[in-house]
Amino acid sequence: MSELERISVEQHQLKMGQAEKEKSYYLEKVVELGLESMDRFVKYCPFPSKYMKLGLTFAHKDIEIIAKAIADNKPWAVVSGLNPSGPLHLGHKVIFDELLWMQKHGAEVYIPITNDESFVVGKTNSLAEARKIAYEEVIPSIIAMGFDSEKTNIYVDSDYPDIYNVAMDLANKTTLNKAFKIFGFDKTEKGENPGTLFYRSAVQVAQILLPQYPEFGGPKPTVVPVGVDQHPYISLSRDVAKKKGFIPPAELITKFLWGLDGKGKMAASRENSAIFLTQDPENAGEALRLAYTGGSPTASFQQEYGGISEICPVWSLRTHHFEADNKVQEECSSGQVLCNECKEKGTESMIKYLENHQNRLEEARIRMDEYILKTPITSIFEVENGQEN
Amino acid sequence: MSELERISVEQHQLKMGQAEKEKSYYLEKVVELGLESMDRFVKYCPFPSKYMKLGLTFAHKDIEIIAKAIADNKPWAVVSGLNPSGPLHLGHKVIFDELLWMQKHGAEVYIPITNDESFVVGKTNSLAEARKIAYEEVIPSIIAMGFDSEKTNIYVDSDYPDIYNVAMDLANKTTLNKAFKIFGFDKTEKGENPGTLFYRSAVQVAQILLPQYPEFGGPKPTVVPVGVDQHPYISLSRDVAKKKGFIPPAELITKFLWGLDGKGKMAASRENSAIFLTQDPENAGEALRLAYTGGSPTASFQQEYGGISEICPVWSLRTHHFEADNKVQEECSSGQVLCNECKEKGTESMIKYLENHQNRLEEARIRMDEYILKTPITSIFEVENGQEN
Repeated sequence: MSELERISVEQHQLKMGQAEKEKSYYLEKVVELGLESMDRFVKYCPFPSKYMKLGLTFAHKDIEIIAKAIADNKPWAVVSGLNPSGPLHLGHKVIFDELLWMQKHGAEVYIPITNDESFVVGKTNSLAEARKIAYEEVIPSIIAMGFDSEKTNIYVDSDYPDIYNVAMDLANKTTLNKAFKIFGFDKTEKGENPGTLFYRSAVQVAQILLPQYPEFGGPKPTVVPVGVDQHPYISLSRDVAKKKGFIPPAELITKFLWGLDGKGKMAASRENSAIFLTQDPENAGEALRLAYTGGSPTASFQQEYGGISEICPVWSLRTHHFEADNKVQEECSSGQVLCNECKEKGTESMIKYLENHQNRLEEARIRMDEYILKTPITSIFEVENGQEN
Repeated sequence: MSELERISVEQHQLKMGQAEKEKSYYLEKVVELGLESMDRFVKYCPFPSKYMKLGLTFAHKDIEIIAKAIADNKPWAVVSGLNPSGPLHLGHKVIFDELLWMQKHGAEVYIPITNDESFVVGKTNSLAEARKIAYEEVIPSIIAMGFDSEKTNIYVDSDYPDIYNVAMDLANKTTLNKAFKIFGFDKTEKGENPGTLFYRSAVQVAQILLPQYPEFGGPKPTVVPVGVDQHPYISLSRDVAKKKGFIPPAELITKFLWGLDGKGKMAASRENSAIFLTQDPENAGEALRLAYTGGSPTASFQQEYGGISEICPVWSLRTHHFEADNKVQEECSSGQVLCNECKEKGTESMIKYLENHQNRLEEARIRMDEYILKTPITSIFEVENGQEN
């Protein structure tokens, strides 16, 4: 065995191990968090999303209440926010794609842009900085993805302070003890402060339960698509919902997209990890060409044994964002298409996508106001006997 | 010694002991909390308030910054709020009297009505109930006391949610550990929840530091008149002010008024303790006639030894609310005026006061809008380089 062959075998085994680890990580999470695997739902649901079929959206809790609402043609809502600390990347797009699928199936979409979170957790230096990012980078990109303004409600927390009244209205349904326990930290946790605690245990819950307030038609099935790290928020929200007489929100869990560096989830904080939606397309293409892959050092080895697509950021990018099905995996694992060719194809689709996206930003900026939620929350000011102040 | 004489002596000694205990309680607080006694300030301040002279306002921290602002004719502010859970009583009036004195000496007055606090701490069943009390009971009574609408800013927290943006802006200047330590409780404390913690360690601080935001002219001397139990809030606010580049607020501490039952501070929660500003005047007179006093069971004993005015709610009521000086104490301790006569005089003044106050309520209700603070807090949305969103 030549030295190059030896390295090829070693790397192949390493990557297979990585794929195994990735798979078992998520399987364990399903058990640990008391979730349901998506498999069963995908089988009997007449309209699974692309990500459900691909296994990217891999687990859920109570998604049946949503399937029933769709079947019965009843109102339902989806909530998914993010904290603005920079432009959106393709990892964020996954969640918004799920939201678009849901909107197509009747969901009223709520998107809180949590500049208060960005600031209190220390991701930005001020509320202002996070707010500027929200309006300049985040919201235009979301709109450009194709949301229907009639059924989409976007708000920036500091510009919709009604959310704090809702948070105060819900805060006493949680104890401090429960909050600390559910988030798994204590009062000495570095980086935590009264703002983070309130944000996590009340504002976040308020965002999730907002669609069930009378202003939006009262209790209704709601689903929150999240990454697995956000499960505690849903647990807490389900608990508060029960105490408030609301419907406990369902949860849909999506795997993280691999970063281009192959070192973990796509994240803005790691250089060479993310492709940003507002990045120069040619520059993004360069980054993709340099990406880590599931392939081998030698063409002959890869032609024989195929690549390990499960941990390949290029496979992930192409399949989840730019291809209709999982043909990339077939071409890869069969050894039919090697990394360079695959990267070229990916680069081509990605540049086209980014150009299209960026061409839509100007119109999106102009139409921003159509999407911004302004509904005042006055129901919490109505006193029991029907009198109002 | 007759049985009645024996009881008289015993009660006299008991009441003297009570007065001693009261006095040493406050003296100890001055030392324990690192405050300054008022005595020295009253001597060199050319315009001490009536309560400062009487010793009801007995301690302070940094009040010199206010004296200097007055002397230099510079802007300064006073902040004092309360949580609405029922109508105001004469115990509340003490604080508002101090505010009126301050306004006369140039202070811009800020009065947060904290319906969020009432609700999260469980004093009312909803934000709505506390809000209704704020507008129906509390604010009209405050206005009727004679505040100048040009220099008075009243707001109900849930109707001025800008205060939550300010709270979020300040929240990361406090750690959870510090918050728990300063309030002396832990995560298992009964009745505490994420809302109370955020209220105490961020919203309350926001209220105290609000006058120093650019919308109100930036950093300025500010004083907060409080009861001794609220000292932790000022400590925390001073700490946050330093980190924010604001002037640490001064503190003015007023003793609690005795309840009519003689069992502690005047409080709405104890029956027969409080006289409410909106109470039927005749009914209030009846309550005063039944009040506990510093007197004796026999006239002859009291004529010889005098009454113990320091712990007498009737003395407190007359002297602090209805008399220009401390002549009630002289008449009492000399045995010249006995309890019945004293109560009659007090009842007469009180009924007159309550009638006047209640006559002013209708106009106060009409003028409410002139007093309500509506200034949006947008400075926290200005990004560093001067750009605005």
